[in-house]
Amino acid sequence: MSKLEKLKGFFNPNIVAFYGVSNIMQKFGTLHLTNLLSAGFQGKVIPIHPKENEIIGFKAYQTIKDVPEQVDLVVIATPTEYINDILEECGQKGVKYAIVLSGGFLEVGNEKGQIRMKRIADQYGMRIMGPNCSGEVVTPNINITHVPWPPRKGGVSIISQSGTYAVQPLIAISEKIGVGISKIISVGNEVNTDLVDYLEALEEDEQTTCIGIYFEAVRRGKEFIEAVKTINRKKPIVIIPIGQTEAGTRSAKSHTAAITSPGYIIDSICEQTGAIKVKNSIEMLNLLNGFDSLPLPKGNKVGILTMGGGPGTLMSDLFESNEMKVPILSSQLQEKLEPWMPETASTTNPIDLTYSDDMQNYLNVLPEILLKSEEIDSLIIYGLMGSEYHKRLVNVPDFIKENPSVITLRNFGEMMHEFFIAIFDELIKYKKKYDKPIILTCYNMREEKFVAYLQDNGIPVYYPEEGVWVLIRMWQYAKFLKS
Amino acid sequence: MSKLEKLKGFFNPNIVAFYGVSNIMQKFGTLHLTNLLSAGFQGKVIPIHPKENEIIGFKAYQTIKDVPEQVDLVVIATPTEYINDILEECGQKGVKYAIVLSGGFLEVGNEKGQIRMKRIADQYGMRIMGPNCSGEVVTPNINITHVPWPPRKGGVSIISQSGTYAVQPLIAISEKIGVGISKIISVGNEVNTDLVDYLEALEEDEQTTCIGIYFEAVRRGKEFIEAVKTINRKKPIVIIPIGQTEAGTRSAKSHTAAITSPGYIIDSICEQTGAIKVKNSIEMLNLLNGFDSLPLPKGNKVGILTMGGGPGTLMSDLFESNEMKVPILSSQLQEKLEPWMPETASTTNPIDLTYSDDMQNYLNVLPEILLKSEEIDSLIIYGLMGSEYHKRLVNVPDFIKENPSVITLRNFGEMMHEFFIAIFDELIKYKKKYDKPIILTCYNMREEKFVAYLQDNGIPVYYPEEGVWVLIRMWQYAKFLKS
Repeated sequence: MSKLEKLKGFFNPNIVAFYGVSNIMQKFGTLHLTNLLSAGFQGKVIPIHPKENEIIGFKAYQTIKDVPEQVDLVVIATPTEYINDILEECGQKGVKYAIVLSGGFLEVGNEKGQIRMKRIADQYGMRIMGPNCSGEVVTPNINITHVPWPPRKGGVSIISQSGTYAVQPLIAISEKIGVGISKIISVGNEVNTDLVDYLEALEEDEQTTCIGIYFEAVRRGKEFIEAVKTINRKKPIVIIPIGQTEAGTRSAKSHTAAITSPGYIIDSICEQTGAIKVKNSIEMLNLLNGFDSLPLPKGNKVGILTMGGGPGTLMSDLFESNEMKVPILSSQLQEKLEPWMPETASTTNPIDLTYSDDMQNYLNVLPEILLKSEEIDSLIIYGLMGSEYHKRLVNVPDFIKENPSVITLRNFGEMMHEFFIAIFDELIKYKKKYDKPIILTCYNMREEKFVAYLQDNGIPVYYPEEGVWVLIRMWQYAKFLKS
Repeated sequence: MSKLEKLKGFFNPNIVAFYGVSNIMQKFGTLHLTNLLSAGFQGKVIPIHPKENEIIGFKAYQTIKDVPEQVDLVVIATPTEYINDILEECGQKGVKYAIVLSGGFLEVGNEKGQIRMKRIADQYGMRIMGPNCSGEVVTPNINITHVPWPPRKGGVSIISQSGTYAVQPLIAISEKIGVGISKIISVGNEVNTDLVDYLEALEEDEQTTCIGIYFEAVRRGKEFIEAVKTINRKKPIVIIPIGQTEAGTRSAKSHTAAITSPGYIIDSICEQTGAIKVKNSIEMLNLLNGFDSLPLPKGNKVGILTMGGGPGTLMSDLFESNEMKVPILSSQLQEKLEPWMPETASTTNPIDLTYSDDMQNYLNVLPEILLKSEEIDSLIIYGLMGSEYHKRLVNVPDFIKENPSVITLRNFGEMMHEFFIAIFDELIKYKKKYDKPIILTCYNMREEKFVAYLQDNGIPVYYPEEGVWVLIRMWQYAKFLKS
C-alpha cells in the first residue's frame, strides 16, 4: 500500500461521522460539521448524539454501531473523558480513520490517556489525526476546521504542528495572498500518525506541488531528515520553526506536548536537506505561491520593468545584495525597447517608463521583448495602481462632474478592468511560452479584481519587496537542485 | 523666521494656482487640481490656461498676472520647456512658493535648465518643491498628488527622495495599515529646498510626532547628520535607504538626478544619530504607526496574551531573540489570572487561553490585571478572527438555516461587532491609564470594522510578527534615548 493510500480515509472519505455536535450552531463540533457542508462536501455526514434524533436536519444515531453504513472517518470534538471509549466503539465498528480535535492528553500531562488512545488505535488498525489538533482541509470540498471557508484550490500543502497556525492565519492569509491550497493537515499530538507520515503521503500526492511545515519538534528525527532530503528535491519544502527560545519552548510545551527542538537543529536540517527556512507565515505562503505558480529561474539575471524609479531602485538593491544580477542590457536589446518607451524613460535595466498609460505596451510589448532575450532569466514588473485607483479618480466634487464641458472619468474603473483582462491574458501566456518566472508587484492585493484574476491564472502578485524575496529564494532553490 | 514659517506656503496656502490643467480630467495637472478639491481644500484654486476661460467650473486666467488676488502657491505640470518662463512670471507676480511636478531637468542631464530655475527662484525669493517631484499631502485638506485620496490624519510625516514612493505605495499602504499621516513631501531634484529644510520644518511642526525618510542621497551631508541627530531625540526618525548597489545606483541616477550614497554611509549615519534603518515601506509605516500611537516601553518585559499556542510561541521566540524578555509571571500574578482562564489554559506567559469566546474577559479583565502589574512593560495580544469570520459562520446551506430546531447564528457578525466596540473602548482606555504600549495582532486588516475602530482610536493592529518587530524597535529606540 502506498504512503498516500494508507491515509486515504483522511483525504478522500465518503461517509463522515461526527461526535460532539448539536443543534447549537456555534458549538465547536457543529462548526466543523457545517463548515464541511459549506465547502460543498459530496459525501454523507452522520451526527452521533446520545439524545437527539436529528441534528441540523440530518438523522442522528445514538451510537456508531447503529449506523447502517460503513463509516470512513469519524471527527471527535467531545469532552476529553469520552474520547477513548468513543474510539473503542469506532474500532469495533471497523472505522479506520479518526480526527480527534479535542485536547486534554499529553499536552496537559495526561500521558495515560494518550497511551490508551495509541493502544486502541493500534488494536483496531485505526489511524488518528491528533488528538489536540485543528483538523484538515482538502480542497476543494473538504474543510474540517473551525474556520468557515476553505481556501482556494491549488498545489500548496501545509503540515502544521501548531493547531492555531494550521487554520486561523493560514486560511485567512492564503485567501489574501491568493495562494492555492491543496491540503492543510494539523497533526496535533501525533498519537499514531506524524509529520513524517504526512510528508511521505504528500510526496506521492499528485495535487501537491510544494510543501510548507510549521515545525515545533520532531519525534522521528532520522526518518524526518531522510524524508525531507528526498522529497525536497522533487517538491520544495519550506519550514517555519517555532519554539526556539526558552519562552517559546515553554509556550510550545504548554500547547502541543512537544519537546521543541532548539533552533540550531532546524538550521542543521535545512543545511543537510536543502529545505528552506523562513520566519513567518506570509513569507512562507508567498514563497510557496511562487513555487506553485512559476517555473524555476534558470539563471540569476533579472529584468525589472517599472513605472517609477523608487521601487525599481529598491528592487535592484535587494536582488544585487542577494546573489542575483540586474544586468545592464546590451545596446541591441535597448534599441529594441526604445521605440516603445517614453522620452524620459530609461532602458538600461531597471527599464523605467517613469509613467505611461499605454498598458498594452507596458504589460505585453515590453515584457515580450525582454522575455524573448537571453539577457534575462526572470521578469519582475512594478507599477499598477488598480481599478480602485481609477474608480476613485471619479470621486470628485459633484459640481465638476455635472459641468457639461468636463470630460469625466465616470465608469473609468470598470472600463480599465475589462481592458486590463485582455492584456493580462496575453501576459499570462508568456509564462509558458518563454518558460521564465514572471512576477507582478504592486500595492494592491486580492480585493482588486485584476489581482485576483492574475493570481487565479498563475501570475503571482506581491508587494515589490516580497516579490523580490520570492524570486531570490526560488533562485537559491534552483541552484541547490543543480548542486 | 522659524524653519516651519519659511515653508508655510507649502503647508498652509489659501490661494493655489495651477499650470498644466484642462477640461480633460485624466490630464496629469488636472488630476492634481481635482484631488486637492476632493480632499476638501478650504482655500481657492485658480487655473491658468492660455485659451480656456473656464476649467472644470473655475474661472481660468490666461496668465498669472491677470489674477486679481495674491497667489500663495503655484503648482506646475506643463511640458518642461515652459516651466522657467512660468516661474519667472510667477516671481514677478510675487508668488513665493511653487511645486514643480514636471521633470526634464538634472535627472535627464538638463543642468542648464535646473541652474536657470535656481537663479529665478533665488532672484524672486521663491521656494520650489521639485522639480521632478510628486507633490505633497498635508492632512486633512491638502492633497496635491496624482493619487485620488488623501491618507487618514495622524502624526506621521514622510519626506521622500523617491517620487513614486512618496505617493503611490505610501498612500495606498498607509490606508491599509491604518497609519495616520500629517505630511508627505516629495522633494524631487531639490533645486532650492531639500531634505534638510523639510526635516527642520517638521521638527517644529506640532502636527508631526515622528518622521520617515525615503533616502537616496544627501546634498548637504553635515547639516543632514546634525539635523537627524538633534531631531531624532525628540521625534523618532525612520529611514529606508534606496539605491545602495550598482544597479540600484544606476536606477536612482536615471530618475532623480541623485548621486546615491553607498550603503555604509546610511549605516554610519544611523549609528551616529540613533535614527532607525528599515528595509521596506510596510516596516517603516508599521513602526511609525507604533511611535505615533503608543507610549514608549519603559523596559524590555513583554506580556503575551494569546488564543492559540503557535502564534504565542512564534512571538516569544522573536522577542527573546531580540533583546526583549517574555518573563515567567510570579505565582502571585498567575493566581490573579487563574480564575479568569479556561482549564486548559497556561498562565506562565505567554498567557494562552487556547480558546475562549468571553471577549470581555480576554480583552478587558486579563489585560488590566497584566498592565497593572510591574512584571510587564508592554502587552501584545493575539487572536481575533473578526466579524468577517463570524459573518461567514452563517454561510451554511439553506436547509440548515431553515430548520426550525437549529439555533442559527444569523446576524451574529453584526452582533459581535457592536459587542466588541464596548470592549475595545475599555481596552483603549488602559493605554493612557497604565501608560504602556498595547498592541493587538490578528490576521485581519482594516477592511474589518473593528480593526479600523481600534486603529482610529490609537491601538495599532498588525500581523503577529509585525507587531513584535514594532515593539522591539520601539524598545531599542527607548534604550537609545536613555543612553
